[in-house]
Amino acid sequence: MEARPFQRIIVVIILVNAATIGAETSSVLTAHIGGFLHAVDRITLAVFAMELGLRVYAYRGAFFRDPWNHFDTVIVAVALVPAAGSVSVLRALRILRVLRLVSAVPSMRRVVSALLEAIPGMVSIIGLLVLVMYVSGVLATELFGRIAPGYFAELPVSLFTLFQMMTGDAWSDITRQVMAERPWAWVFFVGYILTSTFVVLNLFIAVVVNAMDE
Amino acid sequence: MEARPFQRIIVVIILVNAATIGAETSSVLTAHIGGFLHAVDRITLAVFAMELGLRVYAYRGAFFRDPWNHFDTVIVAVALVPAAGSVSVLRALRILRVLRLVSAVPSMRRVVSALLEAIPGMVSIIGLLVLVMYVSGVLATELFGRIAPGYFAELPVSLFTLFQMMTGDAWSDITRQVMAERPWAWVFFVGYILTSTFVVLNLFIAVVVNAMDE
Amino acid sequence: MEARPFQRIIVVIILVNAATIGAETSSVLTAHIGGFLHAVDRITLAVFAMELGLRVYAYRGAFFRDPWNHFDTVIVAVALVPAAGSVSVLRALRILRVLRLVSAVPSMRRVVSALLEAIPGMVSIIGLLVLVMYVSGVLATELFGRIAPGYFAELPVSLFTLFQMMTGDAWSDITRQVMAERPWAWVFFVGYILTSTFVVLNLFIAVVVNAMDE
Amino acid sequence: MEARPFQRIIVVIILVNAATIGAETSSVLTAHIGGFLHAVDRITLAVFAMELGLRVYAYRGAFFRDPWNHFDTVIVAVALVPAAGSVSVLRALRILRVLRLVSAVPSMRRVVSALLEAIPGMVSIIGLLVLVMYVSGVLATELFGRIAPGYFAELPVSLFTLFQMMTGDAWSDITRQVMAERPWAWVFFVGYILTSTFVVLNLFIAVVVNAMDE
Ligand code: NA
Ligand code: NA
Repeated sequence: MEARPFQRIIVVIILVNAATIGAETSSVLTAHIGGFLHAVDRITLAVFAMELGLRVYAYRGAFFRDPWNHFDTVIVAVALVPAAGSVSVLRALRILRVLRLVSAVPSMRRVVSALLEAIPGMVSIIGLLVLVMYVSGVLATELFGRIAPGYFAELPVSLFTLFQMMTGDAWSDITRQVMAERPWAWVFFVGYILTSTFVVLNLFIAVVVNAMDE
Repeated sequence: MEARPFQRIIVVIILVNAATIGAETSSVLTAHIGGFLHAVDRITLAVFAMELGLRVYAYRGAFFRDPWNHFDTVIVAVALVPAAGSVSVLRALRILRVLRLVSAVPSMRRVVSALLEAIPGMVSIIGLLVLVMYVSGVLATELFGRIAPGYFAELPVSLFTLFQMMTGDAWSDITRQVMAERPWAWVFFVGYILTSTFVVLNLFIAVVVNAMDE
Repeated sequence: MEARPFQRIIVVIILVNAATIGAETSSVLTAHIGGFLHAVDRITLAVFAMELGLRVYAYRGAFFRDPWNHFDTVIVAVALVPAAGSVSVLRALRILRVLRLVSAVPSMRRVVSALLEAIPGMVSIIGLLVLVMYVSGVLATELFGRIAPGYFAELPVSLFTLFQMMTGDAWSDITRQVMAERPWAWVFFVGYILTSTFVVLNLFIAVVVNAMDE
Repeated sequence: MEARPFQRIIVVIILVNAATIGAETSSVLTAHIGGFLHAVDRITLAVFAMELGLRVYAYRGAFFRDPWNHFDTVIVAVALVPAAGSVSVLRALRILRVLRLVSAVPSMRRVVSALLEAIPGMVSIIGLLVLVMYVSGVLATELFGRIAPGYFAELPVSLFTLFQMMTGDAWSDITRQVMAERPWAWVFFVGYILTSTFVVLNLFIAVVVNAMDE
């Protein structure tokens, strides 16, 4: 079942399916070859479901010991749901089926495994970053919520704005706006940017050091 | 006192307190369960103060030898102040109490210690960066203060603008505005960006090299 | 043929040619010394073609075994085409001739070779990045195509917008615009930015680790 | 002459001078204590000139063998020029005197030396980056000069815009503006951003690898 040629066919089918789902986003293409695209979609889904069924049958209990098989099962399951409904969000989720490419191509599987393995070593620093953001979010909401309600009206809004500022996107604009009413606000924002950038830098270093140990 | 189960309870109390202080930023939640949130806040603060008192009593003189205990004391003290007043800035500072999480969770304590230990190795480069910013700030104020007063009217304003430009946020917009009157201004700004970026890069390298030696 | 002095003359000719092509973009300079610039251009092109001819003659079959010679041949060929036509795009491509500098200067040749050698080690991660972008692009088109047609009307438009967001350029602006109609849209965009940044970081690490092994 | 206490006095004088020059940028401070600030400035300049004269006298011919002494001489010379004139640009350059801090503090001297030593190892990659920018600049001027004259009217304007795009500042805005007339323009801009970012990344790696060898 896991033989090379068979796996290559699955990869080709995934790529074809990726193309047809992409093509279905175009109203022009849907108008002309919508029926064909839909048929290909049905067929590839059937092939995926069958291939999954065959693998379950072949490996029995051992099947669910490999986490990648859980991944494949969830993806096919999600793909089957929108097949029934017509809601646009469910329809959109069909594209997740293309993620099966990761489990089907060994080198991609390895890359994703390596990425996931880096996460446990980052938990403490991510925890610290979340703490810095949460404390800053509450402070910003209480201090600037009335001055700049578009950015700091409620805690979730503040957290989004602080995430934006951490990525460096248009942070000075927001800060100048707040400083027009609270001239000392730069202390808060420059302090937040220096702190969060320093923590993120150490997050990056943790990932790099981890990658080099391997 | 420092036994595992006790510490876990403290962590849970900190997290509960973080949640209630966060909830108090919401006017809807305050209107409905404001009394409850306030009561939880009073209780957790009392627990923190008591726990701190017990630790001082248990360790006596040894207590203040550990800098983390200074940290805890300052945080509880800050938390006690706004309990009395009603000024919004003081009220907002209550959230700093949640930073006690750092001293209560050993892995976070280690991460923050590592971050702080990286700073001494960076002092010379930070000094150089401050020097570059200060010299550029005085130059920008004298050269462009009248052309673009919103960005360079006074030295503190110029320093904020230069910090903004160092983060790459909307620097070209400001530069084009100044260049409309002083066409050679790009020399100053491009030079500043190249210099400050190069110094920051070396700051990052110092942190990385430091982290790898450990 | 490959002797030092001869190579130096070629480098000088390339730099002169770079200057004349650059000068031809200025309408003032073209009006005053356009004839001279054009003549220099013709002469340098003739020298390049001759030098290439001589090298083919000298090395015969061995000539095409060195990929840098393919590079030189393509560049001179491209340069000869616009010499005939008058279309502006073809005229503009003349500047590509200046890229011959890379093959003519040994240290640049080495740098470019090193850059190109880094690419094979990045194929799997680039593949994963393309997969993430494609899946996100289809999702964004289906979910937000009608809400923000300027950014997500069609799959190619969405892919451009997602590339923009990956570079951090004005991503929060677009997200806020979409959130005005779909308040949950931040989940998609923050998730996309975290995922793509994390993959790009690992791409960088792959390049660094690769560079250090050498 | 180079004894510790003397050097410390020089450092203090530089810092005092930095403060007075900074204070002179404020119209309020100049109105109140302008005479005092000016007097301090005259005195510190005299001290610098005297200290330099004493060092030349003490070391004679050996003085000009240390490049840091050239640095000090140029800085004092530049500082003396604006003392005579009243032109604002010359006045502004007085602040460069504060850069003497670098040569006066041994740890800063070492940091700047390390930064400068990193440059020779970067020459080839910087050359490649300049080549990429120059070729792209000529192309952009010829292809988009008439469509977006504010960004690509002349070669120098294009080079500034491309530098801006390399730093990621508002690049998508410019690209969308050009794409409104030339829908294929994204190929040029995305290609340029990928290429220049990749070269800059390798520049960073060269600096890191260089730093680690030491
Ligand atoms: Na940016
Ligand atoms: Na930006």
